Amino acid sequence: MTYCVAMRLAEGLVFVADSRTNAGVDNISTFRKLFSFGNGKDHALVLLSAGNLATTQSIVELLKRRIDEAEENLMTLPSMYDEAAYIGKLMREIIERDTHNQQGQGVDLGCSLLLGGQIRGEEPRLFLIYPQGNFIEASVETPFLQIGEFKYGKPILDRIIDFNTPLETAMTCGLISMDSTIKSNLTVDLPLDVLIYNKDSFSLERTRQLGSEDEGFLALRKAWGEGIKELFNQLPRTKL
Amino acid sequence: MTYCVAMRLAEGLVFVADSRTNAGVDNISTFRKLFSFGNGKDHALVLLSAGNLATTQSIVELLKRRIDEAEENLMTLPSMYDEAAYIGKLMREIIERDTHNQQGQGVDLGCSLLLGGQIRGEEPRLFLIYPQGNFIEASVETPFLQIGEFKYGKPILDRIIDFNTPLETAMTCGLISMDSTIKSNLTVDLPLDVLIYNKDSFSLERTRQLGSEDEGFLALRKAWGEGIKELFNQLPRTKL
Repeated sequence: MTYCVAMRLAEGLVFVADSRTNAGVDNISTFRKLFSFGNGKDHALVLLSAGNLATTQSIVELLKRRIDEAEENLMTLPSMYDEAAYIGKLMREIIERDTHNQQGQGVDLGCSLLLGGQIRGEEPRLFLIYPQGNFIEASVETPFLQIGEFKYGKPILDRIIDFNTPLETAMTCGLISMDSTIKSNLTVDLPLDVLIYNKDSFSLERTRQLGSEDEGFLALRKAWGEGIKELFNQLPRTKL
Repeated sequence: MTYCVAMRLAEGLVFVADSRTNAGVDNISTFRKLFSFGNGKDHALVLLSAGNLATTQSIVELLKRRIDEAEENLMTLPSMYDEAAYIGKLMREIIERDTHNQQGQGVDLGCSLLLGGQIRGEEPRLFLIYPQGNFIEASVETPFLQIGEFKYGKPILDRIIDFNTPLETAMTCGLISMDSTIKSNLTVDLPLDVLIYNKDSFSLERTRQLGSEDEGFLALRKAWGEGIKELFNQLPRTKL
């Protein structure tokens, strides 16, 4: 499985993705699930993926290829809405192509994507693209969207994140959400790919991979884990 | 949906169940999901249920009825293992009965149960009975089992609970786990039914229902919610 979370906030966008993939529990690998596409001036897009790896890899490969080869591509579309529709259509085409092969019977080729970014003239926007190729957009009331194993890490996001949360605070919360998920579910694991997009910057360079040896992330996990235990120990015990 | 958690610890057993049931999102009701059966001397059993309400209600009704009518019943079986097998068999019979009615087509009649308790001569034991009627038992290494919407509330259990956790501490942790789930999932809600069983007591009287006006539970939710925010605010922010 996978866990990815993205947030659309007043100051910009935040993305966190794990890198664990598995086909069954005995076939586990590490694949990047965060992809960025930008031209530094009027298009900055980030894609996070969950689901069938063959499908998501094909989507990313063909999106890249079309930037060089096709007139209509991620860098020429005029709105994030059009980008989401364009990617949803490509997803359907790839699933259709691979389903027509009889070998594919019984295998779920579906995937879910988070697409965030900004195109000059618009505010930053964030979409969740479903396996059917249709999509929903994050809003001021619901500023974060998740794909994959999302339940373990949702409570902390529900408690902390709102539209006005600063980007660095939101990133920290995304990492805590990821840490809870990793602790409770074997199919989500390090390294993490993270990216912060500052509104109107059209820069995708605030990105990093956090592995098991990243000191900042280790310190964060430790402070949170110990803090939770300490907080819990101070609570009044339930009397029955 | 539903969320129930039960723990088998050195000092005894702990049970927490919500009471929300729903058939779709527009048909929501409150039903008790914690049931206890005991004779005060050598049998003390607690059953928590999730899944199809018709099935779980039939199971409870027939278990009670058989205590009066049948020679083999919950109060005469010699081991918790036999109790789990007995309930699993009854579950299969009820599902079989209701599936043979053509009206049942396409409806999931399955349910999951947590069965905990003690029979004189054994240690307290805890089982999870699957919709197929087979079952697993909690162990020293895995002292808690969950049914229903279990993912939201699992991280805090993973962090706090081990076999030697005192019963009152474990109950508090169960309530926090429930609170996180209620916050993140509409289909789980108050009131909660809770029960603490002290090893070798054969008493099922440490039980209570916690509603939205229970002052102790409200204070706990508030202390936890505020404490989490405070702890989070003290964490170092992630630099990118």
